[in-house]
Amino acid sequence: MAGAEFFRTFYPIQPIERIMTHHSLRRSPLAPAGGATAGLLSRLDSGEPVHLDELPTPSLLLDLDLFEANLDKMSGNAKRHSIGLRPHAKTHKCPEIARRQVEAGALGACTATIHEAEVLAAGGIPGLLITSEMVGRNKMERLVALTRRQPDTMSVVDDIAHARQLNDAAEAGEVRLNVLVDIDPMGRRTGTTAGAAAFALAEGILKLSRLNLRGVHSYSGASSHVVGFAERKAHSEEVMAPPIETYQKMKKAGMPVEILTGCSTGTYNIDPFQDEITEMQVGSYVFMDVDYQIIGGEGGEVYDDFAPALTVLTTVMSKLHRDLATLDAGMKAFATDRESVPEVKGISGTRYQFGGDEHGMLQLPNPSREIKLGDRLEFVVPHCDPTVNLYNYLLLRRGEQVEGYWPVAGRGHS
Amino acid sequence: MAGAEFFRTFYPIQPIERIMTHHSLRRSPLAPAGGATAGLLSRLDSGEPVHLDELPTPSLLLDLDLFEANLDKMSGNAKRHSIGLRPHAKTHKCPEIARRQVEAGALGACTATIHEAEVLAAGGIPGLLITSEMVGRNKMERLVALTRRQPDTMSVVDDIAHARQLNDAAEAGEVRLNVLVDIDPMGRRTGTTAGAAAFALAEGILKLSRLNLRGVHSYSGASSHVVGFAERKAHSEEVMAPPIETYQKMKKAGMPVEILTGCSTGTYNIDPFQDEITEMQVGSYVFMDVDYQIIGGEGGEVYDDFAPALTVLTTVMSKLHRDLATLDAGMKAFATDRESVPEVKGISGTRYQFGGDEHGMLQLPNPSREIKLGDRLEFVVPHCDPTVNLYNYLLLRRGEQVEGYWPVAGRGHS
Repeated sequence: MAGAEFFRTFYPIQPIERIMTHHSLRRSPLAPAGGATAGLLSRLDSGEPVHLDELPTPSLLLDLDLFEANLDKMSGNAKRHSIGLRPHAKTHKCPEIARRQVEAGALGACTATIHEAEVLAAGGIPGLLITSEMVGRNKMERLVALTRRQPDTMSVVDDIAHARQLNDAAEAGEVRLNVLVDIDPMGRRTGTTAGAAAFALAEGILKLSRLNLRGVHSYSGASSHVVGFAERKAHSEEVMAPPIETYQKMKKAGMPVEILTGCSTGTYNIDPFQDEITEMQVGSYVFMDVDYQIIGGEGGEVYDDFAPALTVLTTVMSKLHRDLATLDAGMKAFATDRESVPEVKGISGTRYQFGGDEHGMLQLPNPSREIKLGDRLEFVVPHCDPTVNLYNYLLLRRGEQVEGYWPVAGRGHS
Repeated sequence: MAGAEFFRTFYPIQPIERIMTHHSLRRSPLAPAGGATAGLLSRLDSGEPVHLDELPTPSLLLDLDLFEANLDKMSGNAKRHSIGLRPHAKTHKCPEIARRQVEAGALGACTATIHEAEVLAAGGIPGLLITSEMVGRNKMERLVALTRRQPDTMSVVDDIAHARQLNDAAEAGEVRLNVLVDIDPMGRRTGTTAGAAAFALAEGILKLSRLNLRGVHSYSGASSHVVGFAERKAHSEEVMAPPIETYQKMKKAGMPVEILTGCSTGTYNIDPFQDEITEMQVGSYVFMDVDYQIIGGEGGEVYDDFAPALTVLTTVMSKLHRDLATLDAGMKAFATDRESVPEVKGISGTRYQFGGDEHGMLQLPNPSREIKLGDRLEFVVPHCDPTVNLYNYLLLRRGEQVEGYWPVAGRGHS
């Protein structure tokens, strides 16, 4: 048993309603909460005003004023440069945010996983592009089901063997799957080599009756965090030149390609000037984080084009040493994947250090104010994507008031 | 407004039923799932057999045979040495696991957060000890509510100012709070200094009418991962000697202390031989991880007293290079907090490297077998606690069969 027959047997087609059953759009079930947290969400649901001081800690806060300014700035940038915007939802995993991005002019949303795509689809988000290869029966079957619901859904391919598997799955599911050729921008993570290999893959895809070739995907994660604007620009231009050239050859050969997607928050003001790139899959700009601040901007040493809208609220749980305050926020409250650490807002002369799963050690070599037991300190997060992934919901603030919450509905499945 | 009056005004007492409302013990709401995952959980709920090959990836797997053996071994060890066992639930955040630990003889469960304690209480787990200082109105109010429901609940104190706040909260809530003096085992994270300072704190607590002094808490995280059994034993004995001596003085002075708790999975076969330690708060032994394997055991270079019951199932999503396989499991699938990396089961001559939020790069310098596109590879996790915290549920396997799932009910709140 192989090919289409295999898929039909292994994955009997289910109505999309059944597949989406657990995607309730009521707010609470997607934000499972316990204890006093449940009471808090109920109060927010009923519109009761809640003050920041009432929140449990650690809590993940989204400053709506800063968030909205970030959305507007990126949308304005895209319009000004006549480049498409399909922001990456891996950053937030949150249908409410994707909806606002689309309202601000985005073409849809990128996702890294099939689960994120399903969650966004259930939230009514159109124009989905899954930027990872959907390999294996489980993912292909889900991609087919999602495409039946939203025929414009796209995913990526870097191997003709995988393209054939997708074609079989599409035939079994009686859909056509939209694909982009994934070209490696010298990162060796995924993607076929630019030039002859990518061109041959595109030719192979065109021979498969159930696949629609839509264009090229080439995302350079390595460019995004190059320190220094000039260095970052040089890096992106170097690694994107071969995919761009390959895309041009595909067009010249008459292939029906119309999308060349890439670009990060780090290169949002670089890649629109590279010929042929048709859309940006920027993600982090909605939240910002320490990792991006330290790469430097076009105009100075700090990248401050977008504002740090995402913070974690913590409590000083122990204060027994002159030079140290222990916080209730550690490796389960902040991402630990890079060198950068959380940065406290409004106090200088301190440095955060991880102190365990649930502890942070705020070193106080020269604090600009006294820090006491019970103080509530707010931190800009080190890396936004995996930090958001640690929380069930974003608490929405304007100033000192909490206005509501958005579930991080796509979390818990990588 | 201060003290008890403040708490009564700020936190009107609520019936525990209302506070626990969102703690449904039905299985699915605590494990929000989307897309095909929902179908999977429904099948498992209805008892339908599911094969490992049908699971989405990445998935978090718990091998029930190994898990049960780990439980039995630790319980047997505690009984043999006549030492109490109150395992730490921060490792799993899962009431179903705590229930099995209690069934195997545990006194109850430790938790790191008030949220974990609330979730376990809702799951019927007795004998809760919150091993962190419950500082700030929100946590104190919740501790009071929890203690009203379960009067044997305990937490820790390292500062007389905090003890007075707890006393006020207890008075407002008309309960008595059970506390342990938290003594710092030379880690400078939390805890008062052993000796005079700790003794004075205990005396201060005894004067507060709403606090019950129950004993001493002294957990040496720094001892847990010291490499080499002899070195680890020497470390634990050195740092635990002052807290033990302080506890003895408290007893000699007639203080009503009866608990001295500490001990990690790394020192489970060391601390029972230290006089006076009455109970162990071991956590990781239920799952095990690479971090513990590499510290060495009493009998050899690998710590293999407990079996690696916890793994992550992944898929090879791109295989274009001879020396590299790209996996669908990255920084959102495995904890990134330490030097160690995931280790693939059953294949030698490979090394995992993080490749982004959703990507892993399996380097293949000398693989013991060919690795192909679509292969499903299983990895022992680097650090179990923060890895479990990334998932909504544990999928329960025996051999190749999946028998059910347990929600990681306490996650999403640090």
